[in-house]
Amino acid sequence: MDFSSDTSAPAHPRVIEALGRVNEGYQPSYGNDAITAELRGLLSRVLETEDFDFWLCASGTASNALALSCFCPPTGAILCHAESHIARDERGAPEFFSGGGKLHLLGGVGAQIDETELRGALARIDHDFVHETPAHVLSLTNLTESGTAYPAQQIAHYAALAKEAGLTVHLDGARLANALVSSGASAAEMSWKAGIDVLSLGLTKTGAIGCEIIVLFGEARSKLADLKARAKRSGHMPPKMRYLAAQAISLLTDDLWLDLAGIANQRAQEVANMLCKAAGTELVQPVHGNEIFVRLDEDTAAKLRAAGAVFYTWLDGSSRLVTSWATGPETIDAVASAIS
Amino acid sequence: MDFSSDTSAPAHPRVIEALGRVNEGYQPSYGNDAITAELRGLLSRVLETEDFDFWLCASGTASNALALSCFCPPTGAILCHAESHIARDERGAPEFFSGGGKLHLLGGVGAQIDETELRGALARIDHDFVHETPAHVLSLTNLTESGTAYPAQQIAHYAALAKEAGLTVHLDGARLANALVSSGASAAEMSWKAGIDVLSLGLTKTGAIGCEIIVLFGEARSKLADLKARAKRSGHMPPKMRYLAAQAISLLTDDLWLDLAGIANQRAQEVANMLCKAAGTELVQPVHGNEIFVRLDEDTAAKLRAAGAVFYTWLDGSSRLVTSWATGPETIDAVASAIS
Amino acid sequence: MDFSSDTSAPAHPRVIEALGRVNEGYQPSYGNDAITAELRGLLSRVLETEDFDFWLCASGTASNALALSCFCPPTGAILCHAESHIARDERGAPEFFSGGGKLHLLGGVGAQIDETELRGALARIDHDFVHETPAHVLSLTNLTESGTAYPAQQIAHYAALAKEAGLTVHLDGARLANALVSSGASAAEMSWKAGIDVLSLGLTKTGAIGCEIIVLFGEARSKLADLKARAKRSGHMPPKMRYLAAQAISLLTDDLWLDLAGIANQRAQEVANMLCKAAGTELVQPVHGNEIFVRLDEDTAAKLRAAGAVFYTWLDGSSRLVTSWATGPETIDAVASAIS
Amino acid sequence: MDFSSDTSAPAHPRVIEALGRVNEGYQPSYGNDAITAELRGLLSRVLETEDFDFWLCASGTASNALALSCFCPPTGAILCHAESHIARDERGAPEFFSGGGKLHLLGGVGAQIDETELRGALARIDHDFVHETPAHVLSLTNLTESGTAYPAQQIAHYAALAKEAGLTVHLDGARLANALVSSGASAAEMSWKAGIDVLSLGLTKTGAIGCEIIVLFGEARSKLADLKARAKRSGHMPPKMRYLAAQAISLLTDDLWLDLAGIANQRAQEVANMLCKAAGTELVQPVHGNEIFVRLDEDTAAKLRAAGAVFYTWLDGSSRLVTSWATGPETIDAVASAIS
Repeated sequence: MDFSSDTSAPAHPRVIEALGRVNEGYQPSYGNDAITAELRGLLSRVLETEDFDFWLCASGTASNALALSCFCPPTGAILCHAESHIARDERGAPEFFSGGGKLHLLGGVGAQIDETELRGALARIDHDFVHETPAHVLSLTNLTESGTAYPAQQIAHYAALAKEAGLTVHLDGARLANALVSSGASAAEMSWKAGIDVLSLGLTKTGAIGCEIIVLFGEARSKLADLKARAKRSGHMPPKMRYLAAQAISLLTDDLWLDLAGIANQRAQEVANMLCKAAGTELVQPVHGNEIFVRLDEDTAAKLRAAGAVFYTWLDGSSRLVTSWATGPETIDAVASAIS
Repeated sequence: MDFSSDTSAPAHPRVIEALGRVNEGYQPSYGNDAITAELRGLLSRVLETEDFDFWLCASGTASNALALSCFCPPTGAILCHAESHIARDERGAPEFFSGGGKLHLLGGVGAQIDETELRGALARIDHDFVHETPAHVLSLTNLTESGTAYPAQQIAHYAALAKEAGLTVHLDGARLANALVSSGASAAEMSWKAGIDVLSLGLTKTGAIGCEIIVLFGEARSKLADLKARAKRSGHMPPKMRYLAAQAISLLTDDLWLDLAGIANQRAQEVANMLCKAAGTELVQPVHGNEIFVRLDEDTAAKLRAAGAVFYTWLDGSSRLVTSWATGPETIDAVASAIS
Repeated sequence: MDFSSDTSAPAHPRVIEALGRVNEGYQPSYGNDAITAELRGLLSRVLETEDFDFWLCASGTASNALALSCFCPPTGAILCHAESHIARDERGAPEFFSGGGKLHLLGGVGAQIDETELRGALARIDHDFVHETPAHVLSLTNLTESGTAYPAQQIAHYAALAKEAGLTVHLDGARLANALVSSGASAAEMSWKAGIDVLSLGLTKTGAIGCEIIVLFGEARSKLADLKARAKRSGHMPPKMRYLAAQAISLLTDDLWLDLAGIANQRAQEVANMLCKAAGTELVQPVHGNEIFVRLDEDTAAKLRAAGAVFYTWLDGSSRLVTSWATGPETIDAVASAIS
Repeated sequence: MDFSSDTSAPAHPRVIEALGRVNEGYQPSYGNDAITAELRGLLSRVLETEDFDFWLCASGTASNALALSCFCPPTGAILCHAESHIARDERGAPEFFSGGGKLHLLGGVGAQIDETELRGALARIDHDFVHETPAHVLSLTNLTESGTAYPAQQIAHYAALAKEAGLTVHLDGARLANALVSSGASAAEMSWKAGIDVLSLGLTKTGAIGCEIIVLFGEARSKLADLKARAKRSGHMPPKMRYLAAQAISLLTDDLWLDLAGIANQRAQEVANMLCKAAGTELVQPVHGNEIFVRLDEDTAAKLRAAGAVFYTWLDGSSRLVTSWATGPETIDAVASAIS
């Protein structure tokens, strides 16, 4: 019963198999290999467009920071939620990669940006007022850090507001698959069709060893050379790129990534339902993906820990339980028997 | 006949097997897993000391830049060879990670720093003269960018000079195994016993998918927390660290890394010998590892290309041919028949 | 009737005279001149200690950012008020000078940090939790951005809390003289006696052309060489330092800086009193220095503008009026006649 | 007999007078004042064009670094002479301001870039080769660090080569006036007419307290907003800009800056001639401005020191003597009597 994080789970077996399959013969280095080329075709089917470029990156933090640094100058700011991963959990990566840019933090329930705050922040941007740092990018996260999902329409609405104000729109999709499954939107609907310019499409938490895809859509493609230069000098241009591409191919083929996210989401629902049967236990956030934020009564918490369940206590005293593709039905039974 | 780079070769099969072996069950994230713990024991045997700390990193560029940034402040400089990888081939990674530090470039044949230049640069360091940027680190590379190896005694001599001047000494060991095999030195003799404070121990070019070990020795261990913070914010703290540790374990176990480097070195010797039989062809550098720098006569070059050989032309007009663990005896035969 | 800023006013005549006085003969460059040496003695009397080092800087923004960058590593954060000058009005200078450090913003009325928020932020610092950016510095501002003054005891209380948590304490004293005059504290009581480690002692807004003194107290003096190196490479090591020193000497001699601040404070009180006579006009903040934050009724605002008064409208709709040493009694009369 | 530096000399009296003259009444902050506006007209006459924008800066180091950072991205490089001020004497300012850009050092006698080296470096630029850092800017210096002057035609020739390769051309004119006087070129001929895009026009060494003008010509004007933002966040946007503008006006009016440089150049010639009469003393560089690089025989050096002459010994053992507007005829006599 390890609910500590979806990154504690093993990779999906097909990912390992894929590594073995591409482990033959010579391939050009730095992304010029045949496997990366093959991935492009697959990605274009998944994203339903040809109007994109991409870069592979083993790290979610770097994927976000590289994406942001191409659009936020050192003298600029990024609008994001105060509880977003880029603000809270990346040790200043956006500031580092952008050369000293700022995060402008916005509030909102469920780690979703409040529309009034967003409108206020957009209205305040004044590139002629040299003393304040103007926002250049809006960064959204789906699944959010509270485990909730923005509907694609909300993403589209916020993106439209941001673009009207001249901003580029970034989506941190470390758990994009979970949001897609729960909302029923396609990857296209949740990204470029909604106005996303640059997407961090995460696969690590879904089942890869370590694989994220930075996708540039439309006009944002003009930043590809800059992205590559920044990737190179930050150590995110692996010579043996084929092994990243293979991971992505294995997960995107036949929608395996969505199937795995579906399992994780389903398990999260089941665990949440189980926990809520206990008196005094209630959800802190709706469960839209594979994360459960719940206020456990002391007795239930103690029983879970006694049965070997691993999970984190959050700043507000609630508990976070994360499921993954590897969370089996036996885990649900174990939870049931632990708290009964 | 792909001699473009050792990073064009596939990973060694045992590396892939190792990934499969650790792909079971849950493991704590970010380096707190059992596999990384196991690696520590193995590393201590390989390095013949317990007085070290380490961090795993998929990238050689990041491995160097992270190591350097812990010891060179933004207001300081790094002494290195003008042709070193950190100066030429990392797109400003040391400057980026250090926050604007400088590389102070030194000359010398075979991409080895000339002792007179080194002594001159060390003598010029004056921390009280605020206008010039004083050196804080000496960075050596073994195998060098010209495919030559410093003997361990030379490393020790230069490290002693640098330390007398108050510098920290870094060794870029992207092809350390090749240098160890050709020089007969042990990893300990080439690192901490020679006065190296921080080592980038590379395994990617030896046979890993992407795996480098940053090793801090002795007093340099005080920088471990700083190293981790910098790794985190540069996207070099993979949540699923076990898969990096597994690569390292597979290669360091039973000296596989040295065996693979030995094969690559042996093939390089054979190819070099073969090429030198051609009239008008001569080595530009002695072959101390798995890289051949050779001036090919036009006819030989044309024959090689016609037979499908892939290799780079260097700035000075010479050719670079790189072998790897995967360069088989049939490649030697192919070279022979191509140029006969 | 220019109330736009104290930086719109001319310098005090004695400042100009001082420049003429030192404009004779040769002086060593970069702060090694006799005038800067003379200033040291004067400063030690003003600050009532010998246990300090200092650096002169023409810019308040640089004075703050240089001071902060010596104590906040690129992987660290600075605690400050959400409305502080370093957060709002310096275009990311702290992030730039620190190499990508973060500002951790705290709330509180009157632009003074709320104690509960401060305690909460201090309690959350965990240097072992690598994902979050730990605070290394507490930066206070006196006079605050809302024109209020922290009493020296409050500074001392906050500094003690911060030091217990291992932080360095910085005071942005761009309008320190105004705070000293209104609170009756001495410069020593408001700085090192209250636990301030590094002080930006501003004279520009008080009456200089452009002159700020970065003062390092006690253990913070160990950063002097780092401060100089950072000053040099950011263009804040003027070769002809004597002209900065002369400004500081002219203002600190015979407490001229405090006299000028006293005049500005007195005028602010008079203007505030005058404005508050108008029905519908009320102060938004208490007037502790030379800044008036007031909610003007439309009629009064219109009358003032019609009479030529210049002042800014703030984000919350209130008006900010700033007085200076050059605000004469005739200005008070002009306000009176404008709104009568 | 102070030959240590032209920055050891006092400011010209007219500079001090100008400060007094503008020290009346209120002026808008941050460069929006009437004096700065007046300077624009004067500058346009001096530069013989209206197609420019400018920014005032008290520091030569910042003037160079700000200018360069607008045109060299963090992933790019700047071509400059290995002995240039930006490479040797600014403690990494270009790296800091550019966010980790690189200086690519070129050789050449008299601190003037060798044409073959320049052509070689330009030919090597390959924006598609991600591993190496491509040059974006050529930075020339006139007067050079060796006291020699490039003729305007040479500047124009190098600028044309650089522009063909897509580079922006910067001129560090810390001692521009000295080069103009000795070469007979006008400021226009040595800057925009020669293809200079961005000029650091120095007045500090000529006779100001501290005043440099960053001038953007033609297409480079598109960077004005970026320049201002960078100036702001590096502490180079003084609120009381009028005092910088006044310095510039006093020196540019009636060509005072050229007259002062003419005096300094003349004194340098006289001192050089005097010194060369001593057996065993010879110039190391031709004297094109106000700097003398001379190999003094020991006896002459001793006599000069004994007579109170102050000057620096250079790295190569030669001596540097710098004259200024304040070097009077009595100094020539003193030198004569010292060495006779």
